[in-house]
Amino acid sequence: MARTKRAGRRSGNPDTRAEILAAARRLFADEGFESVSMRRIASEAAVDPSLIHHYFGSKDDLFLAAIEIPLDPAPEVEAVLSQGGVEGAGGRLMHAFVAIWDGPHHEKLLAVVRTSLSKPAMSFVLRQLFEHRIVKTVESTIGDQVDNVPVRASFIASQIFGLVVARYILKLEPVASLNAAELAETVGPTIDRYLTMPVEHLVDRD
Amino acid sequence: MARTKRAGRRSGNPDTRAEILAAARRLFADEGFESVSMRRIASEAAVDPSLIHHYFGSKDDLFLAAIEIPLDPAPEVEAVLSQGGVEGAGGRLMHAFVAIWDGPHHEKLLAVVRTSLSKPAMSFVLRQLFEHRIVKTVESTIGDQVDNVPVRASFIASQIFGLVVARYILKLEPVASLNAAELAETVGPTIDRYLTMPVEHLVDRD
Repeated sequence: MARTKRAGRRSGNPDTRAEILAAARRLFADEGFESVSMRRIASEAAVDPSLIHHYFGSKDDLFLAAIEIPLDPAPEVEAVLSQGGVEGAGGRLMHAFVAIWDGPHHEKLLAVVRTSLSKPAMSFVLRQLFEHRIVKTVESTIGDQVDNVPVRASFIASQIFGLVVARYILKLEPVASLNAAELAETVGPTIDRYLTMPVEHLVDRD
Repeated sequence: MARTKRAGRRSGNPDTRAEILAAARRLFADEGFESVSMRRIASEAAVDPSLIHHYFGSKDDLFLAAIEIPLDPAPEVEAVLSQGGVEGAGGRLMHAFVAIWDGPHHEKLLAVVRTSLSKPAMSFVLRQLFEHRIVKTVESTIGDQVDNVPVRASFIASQIFGLVVARYILKLEPVASLNAAELAETVGPTIDRYLTMPVEHLVDRD
């Protein structure tokens, strides 16, 4: 009975949470974390703003909920490295990169990157994903074939993040429109070199 | 006489413009373009907000004024490439990169990058710097030694922007604390390869 009181606004039905998350992801990806208000997200999801606070708490909490599940890069990295090891890993990583970034999670991934790069307090999102998911996965899969994984991973991250920036944020051509095979051929060898170059002298230097 | 009416607020003296710009750079670098209000910048510069509008117009205009002069990367790129040409250019570029980014303009540069990456409407800043300053400078200095400069420059940009992200925003170690010689040795060869690899097949592919 109370339902009819709020025509045009959805109350706490099972889809509401998912709709708020979808609206938040879309707006964070398109406009960045800072520009988007909770009120705006509520309007986009056609719910009352108080419902967002009820389900998710703060805007930071909503962001973390919005990025949480399908972003985890660990299984992707594990798949790339466990099939074939170090040999040709750069090329396989580029194929996985394109599959992930040009796939259904594109908007959410872009929102994570934009927010993490623009708001100092949120850079922990990418840094934690890197340190606690990616480095650990690389160590557990090819740690027996490659020394100093954290050192190599930081160089590889520098190329991968730069590719995200050039291809998806700045849209520099031709990097923005290359297909997976072309990226594997051009950027793959950069990754391979970072996996094999001498790095012992860069560890604990002082 | 009117001066004493506004104790604690500076009026339009010759330093006011410079102090507004310095405050804007500091806040944009620390907190990103979106988070910082004009009122906040006025407070930081200890001036009346109306003075900022008077001198600079909109917040976007203030940003462009704040990034304008010492940012121009063209002379730096020209110096790197005109002394020695393509041979060893990657290593020299890394030395110039560290000199610029660890130098007095660090805050301003970081503000430009953060803003350009977080706000879609501002990504034109980095894209325009890239297309209209860097690519043109590379073409005018080593365009006779290297084919398809815009293609190569987009790959090089992907590594350079990624280095900015990994070293100065996410602060991934050891990339964040390497000195210029160490970056020249590790990342320099990536740049050199992007300057010399075959790229004809990546031009006008459709």
